[in-house]
Amino acid sequence: MSVLDEATAVQRVGEGRYQVRPDPRFAIVAPGGAVPSAMNGGVMVATALRAVLDTSPHPYPVATSAHFLRVPRLEPAEVEVTWLKQGRTAATARATVVQDTAVQDSLPVLEVTVTTGNLPPGPASNGELSWTGEPPRLPPIEECVDLGHWAGTVGPDGTSGYAAQVDLRLDPATTGWRRGEPAGIPEMRGYFRLREDRDPDAYLLALAVDGLPPVVFGLGAAGWSPTVELTWHMRAVPARGPLRVATRCRHISGGWFDEEAEVWDAAGRLVAQSRQIARVGRSSRER
Amino acid sequence: MSVLDEATAVQRVGEGRYQVRPDPRFAIVAPGGAVPSAMNGGVMVATALRAVLDTSPHPYPVATSAHFLRVPRLEPAEVEVTWLKQGRTAATARATVVQDTAVQDSLPVLEVTVTTGNLPPGPASNGELSWTGEPPRLPPIEECVDLGHWAGTVGPDGTSGYAAQVDLRLDPATTGWRRGEPAGIPEMRGYFRLREDRDPDAYLLALAVDGLPPVVFGLGAAGWSPTVELTWHMRAVPARGPLRVATRCRHISGGWFDEEAEVWDAAGRLVAQSRQIARVGRSSRER
Repeated sequence: MSVLDEATAVQRVGEGRYQVRPDPRFAIVAPGGAVPSAMNGGVMVATALRAVLDTSPHPYPVATSAHFLRVPRLEPAEVEVTWLKQGRTAATARATVVQDTAVQDSLPVLEVTVTTGNLPPGPASNGELSWTGEPPRLPPIEECVDLGHWAGTVGPDGTSGYAAQVDLRLDPATTGWRRGEPAGIPEMRGYFRLREDRDPDAYLLALAVDGLPPVVFGLGAAGWSPTVELTWHMRAVPARGPLRVATRCRHISGGWFDEEAEVWDAAGRLVAQSRQIARVGRSSRER
Repeated sequence: MSVLDEATAVQRVGEGRYQVRPDPRFAIVAPGGAVPSAMNGGVMVATALRAVLDTSPHPYPVATSAHFLRVPRLEPAEVEVTWLKQGRTAATARATVVQDTAVQDSLPVLEVTVTTGNLPPGPASNGELSWTGEPPRLPPIEECVDLGHWAGTVGPDGTSGYAAQVDLRLDPATTGWRRGEPAGIPEMRGYFRLREDRDPDAYLLALAVDGLPPVVFGLGAAGWSPTVELTWHMRAVPARGPLRVATRCRHISGGWFDEEAEVWDAAGRLVAQSRQIARVGRSSRER
């Protein structure tokens, strides 16, 4: 079983109740390499999706809305799944990730609402409406910048932390912030894949839509930018190979910024779209 | 009290429970002018927001995710509000709109998750990160096309139905579909306001983000395009005057399409963003 599949595994412990164990291999590592204590949000969303899909009448998470309530800790958690509707075209479930499950009033850390459905297996059938916008332009992967085990993302053992699992290659036009020369445009573009050999699927897309460095780095912001809410749509089943991810921002004010991501697969199809609203990292105020 | 405020009124009937009465003045009117039986989705979202804001520690719905489960009928409904977190920067509530409340197992028709927060009162303070993308380009309002009481949107009495309440002026570049000559691009642009004199606010924005004709009309599709999920973000408190709304689509396949909206106020500020996933109207297959 792959690292991502192990990290997002769920174990059914009752009617609509799943036990999960946040995996330190996908932890957020504090700068300085301290012991990780918080989990990557995308992996928690993928875990909630796995619990929902366990009893879904349809195979794909077409629309996933995630509101991040508290920082998920590296402690046992539970996913509570409630089906609100099971229809022929779409089914909707609410999935709440709770922690402190030993306490009587466990705390919700993540609220996810998922509408599942079917996605087209291939090209449009005759007469069916079909249309796609322009894909993002990226240089060939060999001309992109390997972020490697960038600072603050890998634990002291070298195997824990998000960047120990994810291979990210950024368009050099969007990496000026690494040398203190931000491009002045809130955009990121890059190739996204796991370091392990594993085909992309819905769970990997849940990571990819929030997988690039925060778009505000392009304007000189720094520090952790906590996601407050993120909604993503799965549009097609991704083909084998690295994903192309392009992000942009439309508005920053009052400490809030939006980040939109498009994910295209290696076959050139738009496979996922997202928008999140997040808080500008605190350290950027010092710049 | 304005028509919109009456139509979205909520009456507290218990701890986190609000009674609402869907208003025929915002009903969806079946083509042919039959008696309306279904409610406009945006008005139902605005109603759920009013229930949430009744006990919110923060004044604005920064992130609202709505999953549409069943067509809301013109019958009494209830909104059940559950607070999942109340923090200093953000608070999150779940609001479920249920109908058939007389029956023991009432049916959820709309699941809304709302994160409330504060928004900047004016221009950015010194040193705060601030940025906005290019606004949409619209012709002056007097050169735009008044859709009037367009077919299938106003009841036989002339006062019921969405178009009896909303004044929509579309950029003529996006109205070719009205004479059977769709532009071939899934985009709409227009000015949006109520027919009554009422300043824009969060409730009106909840309508505006789904207020233009479906973007797929630009490709020759027709018929009702039911929204499956819509998430919108409030980015600033709108100034007085008509709202400018621009919508686009990125991908259509398998009967699903996305529609993104940006709403700018009369003072030229981006006040709301949204993306929805919807189903292509059935009648478009016959074209």
